[in-house]
Amino acid sequence: MSHEILIVTESELKRTLKLGRSVNDLVEKAFAALATGEVIMPPILSMDLPMVNAEVDVKTAYIPDFEHFAIKVSPGFFDNPKLGLPSLNGLMMLLSAQTGLASAVFLDNGYLTDLRTAAAGGVAARHLAPQKVETAGVFGTGVQARLQIIAAHIERPFKKVLVWGRNRDHAEACAQDIAAEIGVEATAVDSAERVVKESQLVVTTTPSREPLIDADWMHPDLHITAMGSDQEGKNELDPEIAAQADLYVCDRVSQCELLGELRTAKQTGNWPSDQTPPELGQIITGGAAGRTSDATITICDLTGTGAQDTAIGNHALELAYSLNFGTKIKTD
Amino acid sequence: MSHEILIVTESELKRTLKLGRSVNDLVEKAFAALATGEVIMPPILSMDLPMVNAEVDVKTAYIPDFEHFAIKVSPGFFDNPKLGLPSLNGLMMLLSAQTGLASAVFLDNGYLTDLRTAAAGGVAARHLAPQKVETAGVFGTGVQARLQIIAAHIERPFKKVLVWGRNRDHAEACAQDIAAEIGVEATAVDSAERVVKESQLVVTTTPSREPLIDADWMHPDLHITAMGSDQEGKNELDPEIAAQADLYVCDRVSQCELLGELRTAKQTGNWPSDQTPPELGQIITGGAAGRTSDATITICDLTGTGAQDTAIGNHALELAYSLNFGTKIKTD
Repeated sequence: MSHEILIVTESELKRTLKLGRSVNDLVEKAFAALATGEVIMPPILSMDLPMVNAEVDVKTAYIPDFEHFAIKVSPGFFDNPKLGLPSLNGLMMLLSAQTGLASAVFLDNGYLTDLRTAAAGGVAARHLAPQKVETAGVFGTGVQARLQIIAAHIERPFKKVLVWGRNRDHAEACAQDIAAEIGVEATAVDSAERVVKESQLVVTTTPSREPLIDADWMHPDLHITAMGSDQEGKNELDPEIAAQADLYVCDRVSQCELLGELRTAKQTGNWPSDQTPPELGQIITGGAAGRTSDATITICDLTGTGAQDTAIGNHALELAYSLNFGTKIKTD
Repeated sequence: MSHEILIVTESELKRTLKLGRSVNDLVEKAFAALATGEVIMPPILSMDLPMVNAEVDVKTAYIPDFEHFAIKVSPGFFDNPKLGLPSLNGLMMLLSAQTGLASAVFLDNGYLTDLRTAAAGGVAARHLAPQKVETAGVFGTGVQARLQIIAAHIERPFKKVLVWGRNRDHAEACAQDIAAEIGVEATAVDSAERVVKESQLVVTTTPSREPLIDADWMHPDLHITAMGSDQEGKNELDPEIAAQADLYVCDRVSQCELLGELRTAKQTGNWPSDQTPPELGQIITGGAAGRTSDATITICDLTGTGAQDTAIGNHALELAYSLNFGTKIKTD
């Protein structure tokens, strides 16, 4: 059986695909599909490799409206920095939704994941952040700290960014990058409390296993997107925040109660065991109420879904076809 | 981050890698590793897609002794034949066991799976079949019917093959192919009973959902490898056979009790719920007793393991490096 597969590299993708309103739109569409119940998204295949301090996740989701479905492999090898290699890399395959034949392999080293993860934060900001955001705060100083702020700024064009990180130098570098990228005032700040109290939109992007944000710092007109916790054991928010929030939203409840902030909130009794929070897709499609006024506290708990991968993968493949990049290989 | 990934096609693999004793050895090594408990093999990620009459499985296994681990994607789109396409295809990735970086993508359309599946049957024959096999029987007329007989013939050089299939023409074509491939007398036979009664080694390779082999047909000096059932609902052996057998062996108990013949055997009380059958790897490593004499009945229940994929994938990559085939792509 002969057909062609397109092999696309990270640099080809980076040259042609960047964050923007259209990527947020695309990921919004994926969440909306999740809410309609037509998406088939099996549990994440997760392989822990303690002997090499590593883990490997495989995600997939089938969305009937999309021509292809993605299967994404995300290895995290946390000793890689000792070898001068990044901890995270990975690749994504796109298979035809009609025949299962592979159409493309994206050797993206996680770039598409970075984009779709940030765009989910953008979608959360679109639907949940106060209309007026003057200041945005970000916890963490890595790739997602930068990208989340870019994706949120598309939706809420704030003037000021406060960056908190454990390492002051990293926080300053991150602030500089953000200032250069979106042309706002961006400052590294030592006080986590100040970041929360002065911001109307906060994004947490760390792998922390202890809460970084105290429930006492909550104030009306605040939205928090917590995207750092995507694993059992991670936790960025004081669990009492779930009880205080006027609206608590998950990307996928079944994932958040295992891997997200909802896990600790439930364990500590701050989220009632008999209640199910709405999902972002339901807010988008109107199946659940969103923010009702600027003076409320909203939380969005993001763990990452295969549906986002399928959405960004389809978009990247359309780009590759239309701009004619990638290497064609006959599978015969 | 720049590194090179090797993209290898089905035809490149078919030209260079065929069944043989060394492939059986390799898969034997994978089963032995499974028995030592050092293999990490998470449950299969399985996505049912009833709206397109399809399913997609993803398997992986990490074996410390191997330089890479495989992640294999196996789509089955059962309406494909209407489009002139095979139902099964798929691809396999090899990731470094030390860094998680992808080293190769095999666009093999399931060829490596075909080999490693047949080789598991070869390993089962090596350890479980009577020493003297004059006649081998095979149920089914597809790719695995041919390959299983080739892999078993390496271990037990039988003189005669009986082929049973629902479609007489297919059975005759299969018998002809087998005769041409390994130079034995091969005959299509209408009576399933005759196939079993006249054979010392039987392999079942069908997707049947009703038993094809009756417990009444059992005789001493018989080994059956049942590899067709790899899904809930499939069933090739009369469940009473599990009770009659002197030795019942699984490739992986946790899979066989869900997907293999063991499922029905347990459901019908033909396998005691408080007993765990040995695994093929334990027979190989001496952790459990194998066949004790030619005059016994042994069964091997094969569902397919990620460990086999990792073994064949490593071998294919070594071949590609040493024979210099495949297309190198810089991931940059």
